[in-house]
Amino acid sequence: MTLLFAPLALLPNGWAENVRIDVGADGAIAAVAPGAPCPADALRLAGPVVPGVADLHSHAFQRAMAGLAERTGAVGGMDSFWNWRETMYGFLARLTPEDVGAIAEMLFVELLEGGYTGIAEFHYLHHAPDGRPYPARGEMAARILGAAADAGLGITLLPVLYAHGGFGGEPPTPGQARFLNDVDGLFEIATAARAACAPGQRVGLALHSLRAVTPKELSTAVAALDAVDASAPIHIHVAEQTAEVDACLAWSGRRPVAWLLDNAPVDRRWCLIHATHLDADEVAGIAASGAVAGLCPTTEANLGDGLFPAEAFLAAGGAFGVGSDSHVTLSPFDELRVLEYGQRLTTRRRGVLGAPGSGCGADLYRRAAAGGAQALGVAGGAIAAGMRCDLVVLDDDDSKLIGRSGDALLDAAVFATPNRAVRDVFVGGNRVVTEGRHPRADAARAAYRAALKRLSEA
Amino acid sequence: MTLLFAPLALLPNGWAENVRIDVGADGAIAAVAPGAPCPADALRLAGPVVPGVADLHSHAFQRAMAGLAERTGAVGGMDSFWNWRETMYGFLARLTPEDVGAIAEMLFVELLEGGYTGIAEFHYLHHAPDGRPYPARGEMAARILGAAADAGLGITLLPVLYAHGGFGGEPPTPGQARFLNDVDGLFEIATAARAACAPGQRVGLALHSLRAVTPKELSTAVAALDAVDASAPIHIHVAEQTAEVDACLAWSGRRPVAWLLDNAPVDRRWCLIHATHLDADEVAGIAASGAVAGLCPTTEANLGDGLFPAEAFLAAGGAFGVGSDSHVTLSPFDELRVLEYGQRLTTRRRGVLGAPGSGCGADLYRRAAAGGAQALGVAGGAIAAGMRCDLVVLDDDDSKLIGRSGDALLDAAVFATPNRAVRDVFVGGNRVVTEGRHPRADAARAAYRAALKRLSEA
Repeated sequence: MTLLFAPLALLPNGWAENVRIDVGADGAIAAVAPGAPCPADALRLAGPVVPGVADLHSHAFQRAMAGLAERTGAVGGMDSFWNWRETMYGFLARLTPEDVGAIAEMLFVELLEGGYTGIAEFHYLHHAPDGRPYPARGEMAARILGAAADAGLGITLLPVLYAHGGFGGEPPTPGQARFLNDVDGLFEIATAARAACAPGQRVGLALHSLRAVTPKELSTAVAALDAVDASAPIHIHVAEQTAEVDACLAWSGRRPVAWLLDNAPVDRRWCLIHATHLDADEVAGIAASGAVAGLCPTTEANLGDGLFPAEAFLAAGGAFGVGSDSHVTLSPFDELRVLEYGQRLTTRRRGVLGAPGSGCGADLYRRAAAGGAQALGVAGGAIAAGMRCDLVVLDDDDSKLIGRSGDALLDAAVFATPNRAVRDVFVGGNRVVTEGRHPRADAARAAYRAALKRLSEA
Repeated sequence: MTLLFAPLALLPNGWAENVRIDVGADGAIAAVAPGAPCPADALRLAGPVVPGVADLHSHAFQRAMAGLAERTGAVGGMDSFWNWRETMYGFLARLTPEDVGAIAEMLFVELLEGGYTGIAEFHYLHHAPDGRPYPARGEMAARILGAAADAGLGITLLPVLYAHGGFGGEPPTPGQARFLNDVDGLFEIATAARAACAPGQRVGLALHSLRAVTPKELSTAVAALDAVDASAPIHIHVAEQTAEVDACLAWSGRRPVAWLLDNAPVDRRWCLIHATHLDADEVAGIAASGAVAGLCPTTEANLGDGLFPAEAFLAAGGAFGVGSDSHVTLSPFDELRVLEYGQRLTTRRRGVLGAPGSGCGADLYRRAAAGGAQALGVAGGAIAAGMRCDLVVLDDDDSKLIGRSGDALLDAAVFATPNRAVRDVFVGGNRVVTEGRHPRADAARAAYRAALKRLSEA
């Protein structure tokens, strides 16, 4: 049993002082006692303590192209998600498993330093550049799980079923060759990934999108997952771009989210990634299903996706979490700020998404912690008995936190920068970041630099 | 003469290697020679070198309330700029000159660490809490100039004429008592500020807004400035909120920017702060005047102001720069990213503001550097002979810059986080930040903490 002691901590019913946290050998919180004396053998946490947030949507390799696809097209002003996707396909064509492992470890180290305690890796880069499976079919998956274990970041790996290039089973493009599997092939990867899991790591399922799987493949894959783990999470990209909505309407007569809600067993296990373009029925439908809306505000802004109808969704009681997705930013605070700012810029109001009477940043943070844990399929997202002991100790030497207390600490962490709010990070009760630094940062940077050098010469 | 040597530097006509930069005793660049050998007595700069950006709009004291006004109103969803302003008035009511000096120095240190090399302080907190001038009328101005000198940040101080509470000479509210001067009173402050200037510091004029000055006061103040310094910059808040546009229409029959363009000698000396709500004629009018649009994207997002029509304004050849304003963020990269993201979210395109064929982030950065210098009334914003030697050395150990070259360096610095892109900062040829740290950071933090403690007990 490990004992932690927090002078100030955010518990499910609010901020509490002098909180004793007992952590079991399994990394879960065994007991929480506010107003307690500090045991002699406890580790005294050096700042206000908040639950960690899981990053619910990641394509780890994309970190290495952050900022690379920002060159404005020669025709000017016509850049879009779809050009960006071509750039991304070109970049990933050269990546080896060793490259992906190096990129993932650098990323995971920086996500921990940014305050994330877990990640859902939406893993679709399965095969060799020519599209053939690696001799060990789970090679790439194992590299990502290994990088997470080395960095100490919690992970739920979601092997992605990607079978087609468009609605109605259209053939894939050459740029998609590394992603492709049928359901059996994907479950070979998933089985290998389960075998490669370190303690606390989990494997679920992702369906790339309704563009990439047929209705039959969707139901077959969900049934195959149920046979192995009937509570494992299921994620899907949906309604990110208006062109996708239009194509789905042309194919099925239904909008993508409406189609999914009618034709798949969407419930609390599910996480709908992006879900940007929704009508009012779809907003209500996702909220009622209990599924998590997997919002990726900085990537959605970077790619020009548009704005998720967050105010209506939260008013309907919807659950949400945040993902760093393409990894242009690596902090839950950044994601929540951009989420709220998008709403403010279009409504011309402030405090749009915060619950009345609470700190807007603090309220968004609490909900994102809960939604992130749900999306990863782990008990977590709050400081309470039974939850994984994923904690962030805020740095009260950060100028923007000086003089702040209670919700205003998280309001400042979310709405003010620079991002220096993270002092220490604990995952499963283990301290993985100390004084803002991960001990593997320098080694990870050296390996990352070598990988990018190989890529530039490839 | 100081000699600097940059392995890679962004010059006015593009990136160049092996650049020798000769700096005169006045802090200006005397000569720039690309493709040169490194002189034995030169300081070799440890990364790619870009011109510094001046922060063209600041209310320094507001840094101490970043994140404080994020509590959602009990009625929910009705928070606005105008509630925020009430919170701000309540906060500033207790500030002493000592407090303002401490807040400003902490801010200026962090702005330098964030990569800014100068600031235009839109200075309206003139008097004691009861509204009476301090015995030394320029007391507050001198504190701010002193903090900038101590931190080594370039500054143009803009004493603000604030005489009324609304269009048509409405009386001010009690919350505005510390701001109020007639033109003569303001010029007493300006004269005292000029006397307090350290070398390289400059004093201009700000008109708070068309709400706060009458047409006669505006013309009298501009004439008084011309008598002292006919090239000094003139700034004004304009068209930040739709309520302000409506009130201006009710008063004059004209929109605020249209009124200003018709009734004031707006030219390159002028900087129009916010100018968020414009019609097409106003967009063209500002661009044609040569004035700088002073954009504050993160504050405008935080306050729910709305979106400046940036795409049309840049297409019309308009000049712009960025300001951190309320100081919720302290980095030019953050401001430029939020500027472009607002456009992407509403147009659903990428690369909206970048010139065709250039890096979007790099192009925005270059233009903001030029516009910022223009707004401060200093020769600067580019690495060229005659310009003040304000430089930022990028940190090529920052993971997001690894493997990047040319414009992609600035694209990554703007569009990817965390903000660790700044290694060293030079202002007027002096190195003021080394390896990301300002030498006065710890001392400034201690003084800032003491000031906030005093305020909480006041």
